Amino acid sequence: MPDNRKKIEVVFSPSLYSHFENPQANVVVVDVLRATSAIVTAFMNGVSRVIPVPTQEEAREYKKKGYMVAAERDGRVLDFADFGNSPFNFTPERIAGREVAYSTTNGTRAVHMAGNSKNILIASFLNLSAVATQLIDKHDDVLILCAGWKGKFSLEDTVFSGALVEKLLETDKFRTICDSATAALDLWKLAKADIMAYVEKVAQRERLRKLGLDDVLEHCHTTDATVQVPFFHNGVIESLKEDTPIREPR
Amino acid sequence: MPDNRKKIEVVFSPSLYSHFENPQANVVVVDVLRATSAIVTAFMNGVSRVIPVPTQEEAREYKKKGYMVAAERDGRVLDFADFGNSPFNFTPERIAGREVAYSTTNGTRAVHMAGNSKNILIASFLNLSAVATQLIDKHDDVLILCAGWKGKFSLEDTVFSGALVEKLLETDKFRTICDSATAALDLWKLAKADIMAYVEKVAQRERLRKLGLDDVLEHCHTTDATVQVPFFHNGVIESLKEDTPIREPR
Repeated sequence: MPDNRKKIEVVFSPSLYSHFENPQANVVVVDVLRATSAIVTAFMNGVSRVIPVPTQEEAREYKKKGYMVAAERDGRVLDFADFGNSPFNFTPERIAGREVAYSTTNGTRAVHMAGNSKNILIASFLNLSAVATQLIDKHDDVLILCAGWKGKFSLEDTVFSGALVEKLLETDKFRTICDSATAALDLWKLAKADIMAYVEKVAQRERLRKLGLDDVLEHCHTTDATVQVPFFHNGVIESLKEDTPIREPR
Repeated sequence: MPDNRKKIEVVFSPSLYSHFENPQANVVVVDVLRATSAIVTAFMNGVSRVIPVPTQEEAREYKKKGYMVAAERDGRVLDFADFGNSPFNFTPERIAGREVAYSTTNGTRAVHMAGNSKNILIASFLNLSAVATQLIDKHDDVLILCAGWKGKFSLEDTVFSGALVEKLLETDKFRTICDSATAALDLWKLAKADIMAYVEKVAQRERLRKLGLDDVLEHCHTTDATVQVPFFHNGVIESLKEDTPIREPR
């Protein structure tokens, strides 16, 4: 019997993406602390669209055009922006029914990088199972792209990747011979019994603490708060109603 | 009291090196399966110098000049070479007192990449403690550079990195806030009780099996078979007598 299982690979940094690029894959972009957690939160709270913007200059242009703008670098809100990328900024009062332009240190770069792939899904612990369900339904190769930190490996994105790999491998539809996926799965198994204790040792936890931005840790590690799965297509991130399967973007 | 501890970072792939480059660091190059294990074995068996050669063309030139040449790509010996990069090829009968030009898929690239750093040490399980001792004596920042596989993360290099990180952190001379180092240490702690069982799941183990080259697994995971610490300087890899401290290359 032929092996119809699709392959899973994990990319630990956008700087490694070129070694993995696969037009047959669904790409899952993850930046647990905090960009993709914030984007998922925004859709939970009714944002209509999120426009990921690579550069500060473009973010400034969107502000001039009247968009609400979330923009930061190294965890600091840019002076022209309405707010930074804490998920807590994306309140229903501010964003419901609105479009938000969004520019961050690492997450935006990863989203744009994946532009050539089949579907680009925005993932976080908040929508872990919903993302897994969509990937299982679609049944194509899966590339989990960690946003990392300035090109470096990030432990929290890796642990999330392991959680997603575990869910996919629980079906008989996927396989992996990718060392990054194997490592991510092992680290997730170490972390999952007490994820908040494990997160204490990630470097980004310390960076956020120094900036007074570490109030989001528990929120960003809350599992399955929503079934929203935002996806990136034609330059914007959208999501669909909770009970509607995601459309094929092409 | 000032914190005089030096920092440890782990680089999971040569493709990530630019994010970590640090002229103050001693760089440890590791390619457990099989390049650095082979180089360490060569010095155990009396080779006088190893010349790491990036391209096939250069390797061919060395052959024409009369050098003994070890060269392979994707685990296959190149037709003009004397042998490939199995550590078992570097027997005393062949190489004692001789110079060998050496070109491999991943390891050579990593060695050359680190050219701008303080010292460049060649590490493997075979000389783990000896490398740790030198790094502790020198007491500078440490960058562990994993050769990986064609730019991708490699589990066996990572597990080795964790073993080395553990030894350095057992002293009070080092610290780390590097997520890659934290992950490597956690993976080593998972693997160390039965390293040969853990190695069963690394991708490179399967690649070598398919090529009939997996006879080296146990040798490449044998710890502390030697106190030789080969170092790269001015284009060549040398080592010193076991009881002589390594010279400062600049």
